[in-house]
Amino acid sequence: MKILLVNDDGIHAPGISKLYEAVEGLGEITVVAPDGERSAVSHALTLDKSIQVRTVKTDLFEGTAVDGTPADCVKLALTELLSEKPDLVLSGINLGCNSGLNVIYSGTVGAAAEATFNGINAIALSIDTYHNPSWKPVLPFIRNLVKTVLEKGLPKGVLLNVNIPNVEKASMIKEVMVTQQGMAHWQEAFDKRTDPKGRTYYWMTGVKREKKEDERIDDTALKNNYISITPVQFDLTAYDKFEEIKNMGLSYHNK
Amino acid sequence: MKILLVNDDGIHAPGISKLYEAVEGLGEITVVAPDGERSAVSHALTLDKSIQVRTVKTDLFEGTAVDGTPADCVKLALTELLSEKPDLVLSGINLGCNSGLNVIYSGTVGAAAEATFNGINAIALSIDTYHNPSWKPVLPFIRNLVKTVLEKGLPKGVLLNVNIPNVEKASMIKEVMVTQQGMAHWQEAFDKRTDPKGRTYYWMTGVKREKKEDERIDDTALKNNYISITPVQFDLTAYDKFEEIKNMGLSYHNK
Repeated sequence: MKILLVNDDGIHAPGISKLYEAVEGLGEITVVAPDGERSAVSHALTLDKSIQVRTVKTDLFEGTAVDGTPADCVKLALTELLSEKPDLVLSGINLGCNSGLNVIYSGTVGAAAEATFNGINAIALSIDTYHNPSWKPVLPFIRNLVKTVLEKGLPKGVLLNVNIPNVEKASMIKEVMVTQQGMAHWQEAFDKRTDPKGRTYYWMTGVKREKKEDERIDDTALKNNYISITPVQFDLTAYDKFEEIKNMGLSYHNK
Repeated sequence: MKILLVNDDGIHAPGISKLYEAVEGLGEITVVAPDGERSAVSHALTLDKSIQVRTVKTDLFEGTAVDGTPADCVKLALTELLSEKPDLVLSGINLGCNSGLNVIYSGTVGAAAEATFNGINAIALSIDTYHNPSWKPVLPFIRNLVKTVLEKGLPKGVLLNVNIPNVEKASMIKEVMVTQQGMAHWQEAFDKRTDPKGRTYYWMTGVKREKKEDERIDDTALKNNYISITPVQFDLTAYDKFEEIKNMGLSYHNK
């Protein structure tokens, strides 16, 4: 089995080393990841500049560092760097959950999506903390999840978006829940400043706006110490709104 | 009525001027757009650096140029730059269609999506050519479309993704078609080069991989000279795959 690892926190981030540790021995592992942090870059592609690559050695692996986005990494790996199509692409382990509308902004999910578009099974993995993640209760679960997906495959066009609560002990995790993506999003705030020349600039900040949502929603499951697994697909058509849009009377020739 | 214009080709691109021309007089118009091209940046946000803004005057309007992504522009406009919530956000007119899986990568759609997430009606507009667009058959249609949406509104959580064929004469446009997002995507190629110091780098190129799809798909409609209008929503959950994922036997405590 051939497994490609990618992330959006960069090749030197602890999450991708822990992911490597979790799946070591399950197949031939290749690491292709951004050379630094690329959070919230979504599915961005690098089209207006060239992309440099270099080999990076860490304590655990030798990988390829790319000065591009997570999606660039997967495209480059599939087209140029790998001699054969991988059986599975794993993206993560991201620090900070990718749930609710965050899924749209997530570089972690964006990288996994590239694999899905190319008919390759993919899993995006995130842990629900920005600081001091507790990896121990997480790694055996990821290993089992990866084994299962390697064995059984995934439905066509669908990736798994996995969010894991940050808990001290395995016994604190309730179970796995197959969830729906919620619609919670961040409420932005901008910190307005003035530069030494008197010009205005901003820093984007924000807090996640809590939304009262169903128990079956990713954010709620996570809060209740379930591992949230959302099957994600990429047809954004609002099928249930077709009639409503058709009834708006939009026409080109009849004004 | 208050209308916010944004794009991903930059504030100096012809498409946003043409959009301004199309809707002039329908309300109070504000332009907040990237200071240069930001194509294929998807929903990327600028979190790791500050964002500069400056006032830009063109022949048609005075607007705000932002050294950030299209999504940054809308967030900044809604939070800091506008005194009141706009009634409508228009994103475009993009050179090159945003159809099929391109919708996922599109900065044009990404900007419109920001408005949708904040409960504001939004339309993403693209014309199906990269060179010498023929604007004349397009602008009266956009004006009528905007009038209709200002009057009737849109379903909650849904934006319109509008792709317009590039034709010489109005009579060549068949009609408007409410379409589904297709799943056609680009087949990447990388142009591999060596820098003067002997190091490898790449340029991303690619061609759209044609996919035989239904007549009701955005790309097909466009090819047949229909104006394609896809209602787009942002819940990516693959609801029809829930049972299949549940039956995989993923569990935390039972190994």
